[in-house]
Amino acid sequence: MGENKKLVEAITSMEVDFAQWYTDVVKKAELIDYASVKGCMVIKPAGYALWENIQRELDAKFKATGVENVYMPMFIPESLLQKEKDHVEGFAPEVAWVTHGGMEPLQERLCVRPTSETLFCDFYKDDVQSYRDLPKCYNQWCSVVRWEKTTRPFLRSREFLWQEGHTVHATAEDAEARTIQMLNVYADFCEEYLAIPVIKGRKTDKEKFAGAEATYTIEALMHDGKALQSGTSHNFGDGFAKAFGIQYTDKDNTLKYCHQTSWGMSTRIIGGIIMVHGDDSGLVIPPRIAPTQVMVIPIQQKKEGVLDKAFEMKERLLAAGFKVKVDDSDKTPGFKFAEQEMRGIPVRIEIGPKDLEAGKCIIVRRDNREKTEVLLEELEAKTGEILERMQKEMLERARKHVEEHTYVAETYDEFCDIIENKPGFVKAMWCEELACEEKIKEDTTATSRCMPFIQEKIAGRCVCCGKPATKMVYWGKAY
Amino acid sequence: MGENKKLVEAITSMEVDFAQWYTDVVKKAELIDYASVKGCMVIKPAGYALWENIQRELDAKFKATGVENVYMPMFIPESLLQKEKDHVEGFAPEVAWVTHGGMEPLQERLCVRPTSETLFCDFYKDDVQSYRDLPKCYNQWCSVVRWEKTTRPFLRSREFLWQEGHTVHATAEDAEARTIQMLNVYADFCEEYLAIPVIKGRKTDKEKFAGAEATYTIEALMHDGKALQSGTSHNFGDGFAKAFGIQYTDKDNTLKYCHQTSWGMSTRIIGGIIMVHGDDSGLVIPPRIAPTQVMVIPIQQKKEGVLDKAFEMKERLLAAGFKVKVDDSDKTPGFKFAEQEMRGIPVRIEIGPKDLEAGKCIIVRRDNREKTEVLLEELEAKTGEILERMQKEMLERARKHVEEHTYVAETYDEFCDIIENKPGFVKAMWCEELACEEKIKEDTTATSRCMPFIQEKIAGRCVCCGKPATKMVYWGKAY
Repeated sequence: MGENKKLVEAITSMEVDFAQWYTDVVKKAELIDYASVKGCMVIKPAGYALWENIQRELDAKFKATGVENVYMPMFIPESLLQKEKDHVEGFAPEVAWVTHGGMEPLQERLCVRPTSETLFCDFYKDDVQSYRDLPKCYNQWCSVVRWEKTTRPFLRSREFLWQEGHTVHATAEDAEARTIQMLNVYADFCEEYLAIPVIKGRKTDKEKFAGAEATYTIEALMHDGKALQSGTSHNFGDGFAKAFGIQYTDKDNTLKYCHQTSWGMSTRIIGGIIMVHGDDSGLVIPPRIAPTQVMVIPIQQKKEGVLDKAFEMKERLLAAGFKVKVDDSDKTPGFKFAEQEMRGIPVRIEIGPKDLEAGKCIIVRRDNREKTEVLLEELEAKTGEILERMQKEMLERARKHVEEHTYVAETYDEFCDIIENKPGFVKAMWCEELACEEKIKEDTTATSRCMPFIQEKIAGRCVCCGKPATKMVYWGKAY
Repeated sequence: MGENKKLVEAITSMEVDFAQWYTDVVKKAELIDYASVKGCMVIKPAGYALWENIQRELDAKFKATGVENVYMPMFIPESLLQKEKDHVEGFAPEVAWVTHGGMEPLQERLCVRPTSETLFCDFYKDDVQSYRDLPKCYNQWCSVVRWEKTTRPFLRSREFLWQEGHTVHATAEDAEARTIQMLNVYADFCEEYLAIPVIKGRKTDKEKFAGAEATYTIEALMHDGKALQSGTSHNFGDGFAKAFGIQYTDKDNTLKYCHQTSWGMSTRIIGGIIMVHGDDSGLVIPPRIAPTQVMVIPIQQKKEGVLDKAFEMKERLLAAGFKVKVDDSDKTPGFKFAEQEMRGIPVRIEIGPKDLEAGKCIIVRRDNREKTEVLLEELEAKTGEILERMQKEMLERARKHVEEHTYVAETYDEFCDIIENKPGFVKAMWCEELACEEKIKEDTTATSRCMPFIQEKIAGRCVCCGKPATKMVYWGKAY
């Protein structure tokens, strides 16, 4: 119990200090380590395995919609970055510059990609000639660099891993359809795999991507009531096409500008998993995305037959398609429990000499500690049922959290009071004026998260200025 | 036929100009495109899909040996790069330097990783404390940058994709065993999946990795008789551990230095696939690694039933586990054949109205054009047999090519004559003096490829200086 207690005590309670709890979890669950490069992180095996699972599932969803993977260079010549005016203004302040190659200074400095619109455009301008070449739906998995001042593991770091999709279409309609399609892919993925419910909507002009005509977003609510922008999909219209000269000859033999989109999801979403599902014992990983779903923990493992049975159970569960490990280390069971809980492994199976005799084992869910006594002959079926139920209930619990932390404000006093005292989303009307959006941010630090696709008419007037308003916006403090 | 001819004529014959043939194939098979960043390439869908398959198979082989994936930052502070003397000397002349982050100059410049030994060492020095922590077997899939002066797609580019494994062990024996184990993984992968036979051996001190105690390599022979170093595995001994202070407390409670290895394979191997198997019609991809294994090409596709049958065949083959596409574009069959051949798709299936009537189709192998008439009811079985035989025969053919282009030289005159007139490997004895190795390179441009594990006693004396020699070396011109 001593060791066990030590491990558990090592993390700060989330009610006491959520930020410190988060930092403790990412370290103690061995997801990351800090690197000697300021603002960068080492993604350790447990963290990277989670990313690999996210990658595999998302990649399959992309490919099912006709997306193909490619790889662009990581360097962007300064002149290329500057071709689209809004884009360079948005990104130039936060890029890393390469000025020397080997011993010699470069003729033109290169930035390390913060995102690759300019490279894709430069490529598409030659690759696309005719309507027959369209659409092109390319994606790449890579790392990008943004020279942030303050950083936090997964949420904001100078280098992070992501995928960025870049598509070219013949018409504005096709581009808009692809933009929405990919937003839906992200939303479905978050709900089905990560058990994270999201609000789908459009960003205000202030919050949209540098160079986009429209940015769509999925917004998730963390345990502390702050929002996390979890994936974005941008419709560029023909803005980049005009800046880069991406044209095609249409069926009617006229030259037309293409329409483009881009969309991305990053390792940031791992921060979302931690902050939506975690608790004071550590991480809780949804079963469908967990690198290890079951940890078999033998009790009194030196007693005859216990370890053999534990490994036999592992083999049976592996054969049934589960991801299973046995913790046969020389630690105490209590320590092993605490470790399995800290790492967020969805269920543990306890098997000791008495269970062995009775032909039973105990399955313990990570999220609610529910214990189920299971007959060994029903091991595979019960494990499957319990994991499925857990996945479903994690989503329901997270949904309930969003519902319970979504408020409505009609007046500005109400709005400010909620933002200050009730962490969560605030739904309120907005007149679509930048001034109101800026005032709200100035007064409360809350930002517009999105104009949700599902609009409700809460009131007739802007929550800030009182002028007539027809747009309902989700507001909140955000990561 | 006009279009068809155009496509075929577009590539240079390999006998006329092998280098130009190579460049033509990578472009026409749509593996890569040049980027506006000098010396960098865009890996297009066909090229990237090949790399994804390589990744998936290699990654599974790594994991089967207990390797875990991680991700390290792409930047290395200059002071960290300098910690191991030989290492920095080897790499500093060819790294790209980041000197500015956003608008401000950095206090210490950062190089973009040319390889990540220093980052892994910096991480391991804190992560490894006790013998219980060992071994650690980590790998990462990423891109690296080396500021090369002359570049060629896949073979030598300023940025390339690879994996780099980095392991830490308690003893010298464990490190040596892991080094050899991973070399064997590479060799088996090349033979089983890529149908590329390789020579396994040890690099001479002159050719070993900067900072390594021993470098092992697999060397493949290209169609033009030049060698390609296709994968390397390094034993670092405790050199890096001493430079970085990576120590562990052993069971006997004493502090000991760790022993380390690293090993890598890169997109360079795609150049190997092209140059071992390709021909004047383009690429030939071994079936086991091909992103598309079968292209169904309907003949007279507007005739009733032909396209339906083509898609029905596709569905049947997909269901049987093959990777299949139908080319139902409005190009002529001849053009489609040429395109399928250029892209190296292992087999095409021709199906026209007459075949339909006879309940047959024609399967044509890409490598030797062998045609097989197949009853439609035997489609899956025959496709499988043909692909398997093709995979096997491609390896046999490549093996024969190596045998027929491996020569033995006892005297220096013989040696120089072979290097000049008979492209291939030359087996010759070497006294282990650097001077002889340098003289050979100076006189012939050939380099020592490796000291093969399987040694033969060709002669008693060094082929260069005539002094007594016990080491047999493979020599050759190389990419």
